[in-house]
Amino acid sequence: MPADPSRVIANLRELAALTSDANGAQRIAFTLTWQKARDWFAEKLIGLPVERHRDAAGNVWVTLPGDSPKALVLGSHLDSVPNGGWLDGALGVVTALEVLTSIARDFNGRPPFTVRLVDWADEEGARFGRSLFGSSAFAGTHSIAADRIRTDRDGTTLEAALREHGIDIDRIGGASTERDNIAAYLELHIEQGPVLGRLGLPLATVLGTKGVERHAITFTGQEAHSGSTPMSDRRDALAAAARLALDIYKIAGKHQDAVCTIGSVKTFPGIVTAVVGRCECTLDQRDLSPDVLAQMYREAEEASQRFATQQGCTVEWSRIWSIEPIPFHPDLIALSREAIDEIAPGCPSLPSGPLHDAAEVARAGIPTVMMFVQSLRGISHNKIEDTSEEHLRLAVTAFDRLARKTLAWLGAK
Amino acid sequence: MPADPSRVIANLRELAALTSDANGAQRIAFTLTWQKARDWFAEKLIGLPVERHRDAAGNVWVTLPGDSPKALVLGSHLDSVPNGGWLDGALGVVTALEVLTSIARDFNGRPPFTVRLVDWADEEGARFGRSLFGSSAFAGTHSIAADRIRTDRDGTTLEAALREHGIDIDRIGGASTERDNIAAYLELHIEQGPVLGRLGLPLATVLGTKGVERHAITFTGQEAHSGSTPMSDRRDALAAAARLALDIYKIAGKHQDAVCTIGSVKTFPGIVTAVVGRCECTLDQRDLSPDVLAQMYREAEEASQRFATQQGCTVEWSRIWSIEPIPFHPDLIALSREAIDEIAPGCPSLPSGPLHDAAEVARAGIPTVMMFVQSLRGISHNKIEDTSEEHLRLAVTAFDRLARKTLAWLGAK
Repeated sequence: MPADPSRVIANLRELAALTSDANGAQRIAFTLTWQKARDWFAEKLIGLPVERHRDAAGNVWVTLPGDSPKALVLGSHLDSVPNGGWLDGALGVVTALEVLTSIARDFNGRPPFTVRLVDWADEEGARFGRSLFGSSAFAGTHSIAADRIRTDRDGTTLEAALREHGIDIDRIGGASTERDNIAAYLELHIEQGPVLGRLGLPLATVLGTKGVERHAITFTGQEAHSGSTPMSDRRDALAAAARLALDIYKIAGKHQDAVCTIGSVKTFPGIVTAVVGRCECTLDQRDLSPDVLAQMYREAEEASQRFATQQGCTVEWSRIWSIEPIPFHPDLIALSREAIDEIAPGCPSLPSGPLHDAAEVARAGIPTVMMFVQSLRGISHNKIEDTSEEHLRLAVTAFDRLARKTLAWLGAK
Repeated sequence: MPADPSRVIANLRELAALTSDANGAQRIAFTLTWQKARDWFAEKLIGLPVERHRDAAGNVWVTLPGDSPKALVLGSHLDSVPNGGWLDGALGVVTALEVLTSIARDFNGRPPFTVRLVDWADEEGARFGRSLFGSSAFAGTHSIAADRIRTDRDGTTLEAALREHGIDIDRIGGASTERDNIAAYLELHIEQGPVLGRLGLPLATVLGTKGVERHAITFTGQEAHSGSTPMSDRRDALAAAARLALDIYKIAGKHQDAVCTIGSVKTFPGIVTAVVGRCECTLDQRDLSPDVLAQMYREAEEASQRFATQQGCTVEWSRIWSIEPIPFHPDLIALSREAIDEIAPGCPSLPSGPLHDAAEVARAGIPTVMMFVQSLRGISHNKIEDTSEEHLRLAVTAFDRLARKTLAWLGAK
């Protein structure tokens, strides 16, 4: 008997009622409300033939042993941003539980392969600014030295918050032992963007997570009196930045699915009576193709030099962060397309702009794929985040089919 | 015997040594260093046949009585911004003293008209943000109710700071009695801009002070995830603001001497991973022609609407402040041109972008003109503010000639 979407929706509503307030979901990792969500989830396992434990990084693992120790893992995260939505992360965990339950039932408690569920710790990084915390520890890409001293708004360090939850930051790398025998990883998530909504389609197969180039760009001109400095004498750092803010639409527009964003602009001295002498901005560029990403970075860099020269300014770049594109596994991509096609033909395959725990799992060399379901209005990280019940039902069914197809794929390998 | 530029330069150097530190001039109004400058200046009057008093707003008046009570006034301000230059304001006051001294000498202490010198109180408004304090009290355009509660960084109110210096804020309007019998006002000032430097010329006749339209402009689009929001789906408030930041060059460029400045841009949420949902900027527009100023304001408003629509945003304007253009007196403009032509032919006439005390005097209906001398690099409000000694000498001589021509003009009226 396939997974039951009604139970998933009912559980999600129960979780939302338990862990939200008037401003939305409050399941911020390493807080009491998050712990409450995890306790609620643990109770949902009662009666299932599963083992549950927490690993060294705080990820929760639920294991349904199979004939083979080779494991299929279904996962996502219960933590949310502050004032978040009811589906981001929770949909994947709660659906994984329903699919695991249904597989246990269909195989009389003993499937041919082990099936595991993971609830990653602190995917959002909302409190300490370190996203993918648990999955990066699992993948061996953690960065303990840099993260130890991260603080939240109240000055609490990440190290201290972890300790409160029984996690020793120096030992989180131990989560990598969970990788043993994992043969495939599947994650269902809301899209968090407007593409499926615009297409009027419920589901998508995710091709991988886009690589990111993230830079701080500073244009330096000459602060000058707004009243006494003729337009032709100005070295206006804002004008140079404004040209770049528009040019990124051309740079990204050459490629399907590529995005470039200037999210922050700061002007100095930043007063109404002075031409901007210095303008600091941030640029975030993303694409699934490493070549496209490199080309966009090069083009933005060249454009910024050109605009700086045009405005009598100079420009400096400094990398904030970057990550390479992480493509998902071609066989699992094909299985996801099949699963979706069976119930919702015509749905697209697309890259994910946001990062996900699945990216860390794929980086660890584990065959991985994700499935997206439409986000209403393309909005997430907000209490108005939503997905139609019809689409949630299709998502649970398609993901269940994907899990079963993946078990068959493991058997055929 | 004409005014002696050497004495002016020597006095300015003495004042700078007395009231500057390693970061520049520190003659901020209503501070001890400013008072020190005024005490130094009072000592310079010893031996002159003059009367000195302070008016109800703290302006200092020095009067050389003439045969007629009708008065020619020469003035500027001794106060500076923090870390200011040695010439801004002080040049005008110290030159006025030398010109008054030279007139007293040439007329054996009794010129045909009364000659007065004024040192305006708090032209800069550096400490409380209320510029032209003393001259607006004189002109009757003061704004006591709004200014009373202005505070400096330490929380001291303007009212309290005035009281410390013996000024009752409720009585500053009394300064208007000084207007009696004033028939002309002349002010020498550094240009504070790059125009004369670019022309390679020392002096300019000032046609008036530009009117100012100053607005806060807010573009509102939709905050969105930088990774999951396709370029074509964005309602990017920064892109709309960037179009305006470039378009103001076209709007101002249609007119000689007009300027438009976006000095401050703030982005919200202003983070590297989000498309800008709201962008707040300031626009400052200036021209000597009311028609040009009105046209530029209208064009910027229309452009902002067009750009908002193009980017799927809305836009709102709110006026921060405005002042009408204040043209100087045509006869005095002609006399200034004559005076300059006699010693430095080919110099221009131009409007002042920055406001000056002279604007308040002209608003009070008193025939007024200003003379500018070149600012090296166009820079002021900075310790590197400077003017070549050659140009300072020409300025003192031209201003002296202008004062004498104005006395003759008063006689011929």
